Amino acid sequence: MKKTINKKTLLYVHPVFIVGSYDDKGAPNIMAASWGGICCSQPPCVTVSLRKATHSYWNIMKNKAYTLNIPSASQVKEADYAGIYSGKDENKFESLGLTPVHSKIVNAPYVEEFPMNMICKVIHTYEIGLHTQFIGEVVESYASEEYLGENGLPDVARIDPFIYDSSSRGYFRVGEKILDAYSQTK
Amino acid sequence: MKKTINKKTLLYVHPVFIVGSYDDKGAPNIMAASWGGICCSQPPCVTVSLRKATHSYWNIMKNKAYTLNIPSASQVKEADYAGIYSGKDENKFESLGLTPVHSKIVNAPYVEEFPMNMICKVIHTYEIGLHTQFIGEVVESYASEEYLGENGLPDVARIDPFIYDSSSRGYFRVGEKILDAYSQTK
Repeated sequence: MKKTINKKTLLYVHPVFIVGSYDDKGAPNIMAASWGGICCSQPPCVTVSLRKATHSYWNIMKNKAYTLNIPSASQVKEADYAGIYSGKDENKFESLGLTPVHSKIVNAPYVEEFPMNMICKVIHTYEIGLHTQFIGEVVESYASEEYLGENGLPDVARIDPFIYDSSSRGYFRVGEKILDAYSQTK
Repeated sequence: MKKTINKKTLLYVHPVFIVGSYDDKGAPNIMAASWGGICCSQPPCVTVSLRKATHSYWNIMKNKAYTLNIPSASQVKEADYAGIYSGKDENKFESLGLTPVHSKIVNAPYVEEFPMNMICKVIHTYEIGLHTQFIGEVVESYASEEYLGENGLPDVARIDPFIYDSSSRGYFRVGEKILDAYSQTK
């Protein structure tokens, strides 16, 4: 029996990414965001949606650039903090002891200590309502070598990423593997 | 030491959703998709990106409507199958023994057997490259009662959703909780 639960965005398993940007004084900022994901394979593009109330929104509108940084479970406290406080009031890189690295390709900083970094150039902005969606073309990606598997690709077990559940407001680890994709052929 | 790993969409922890649509003969179709996520809280909106090579792309372009259905780990084989075969060649609801339910609000079917269903009206279409992004306003959401917690919200432990990792091409369960969100206040 199905029950109506209002008009809700129920999508389970939200990623947690840390969005990097520079403000109008050139100070680096990070914030945590869960509304987004991959939106195109070629060109490689990712999307993130932000409210105008955030410092990052205005930074990205000005620079047309941002980074998405993927933290490990061991860095979940830093990620949570970055989602609570505003770059209007403090430099969160300094508060958290993290290192901003200028991306060189676009005007945005990435987080040295986080396993993976995507450098994004904004190619489309769409105002939906409370949130504005930024589509960013991934112009470069970095990973720390210790997080790569033998095939040279990021290894989920080494990265140990985490998930956000907005119903219970909790962060969860990735659990056991249950199936190989593309295995259910006739 | 950071290593460049080409221009890649490295976003870890992809959701897996099953996209429901009707084709031009009125036949219901499902496909598995991982490129998407939540993109706005108010109005509630979700996004999914599809290639023109898919049957679903044309269905959604015609009807301006789709559903996103969230399967449980126990339904991972059905989800994988829905990502391999095309609705051009077969009715995947029939192949998998799943029940299409007409959403009434928009012209799209949802999957009765999957724990959660979002009924979406397309409000914006953006051609990025290989993928086209559809932004859908969630006009209704359904959940089976056995998946709701005591607060009336979907319960991640009962839903037992799964995650796709595109590097290893595997599906993973959600693991242990590591932190409460909004806990790292000063």
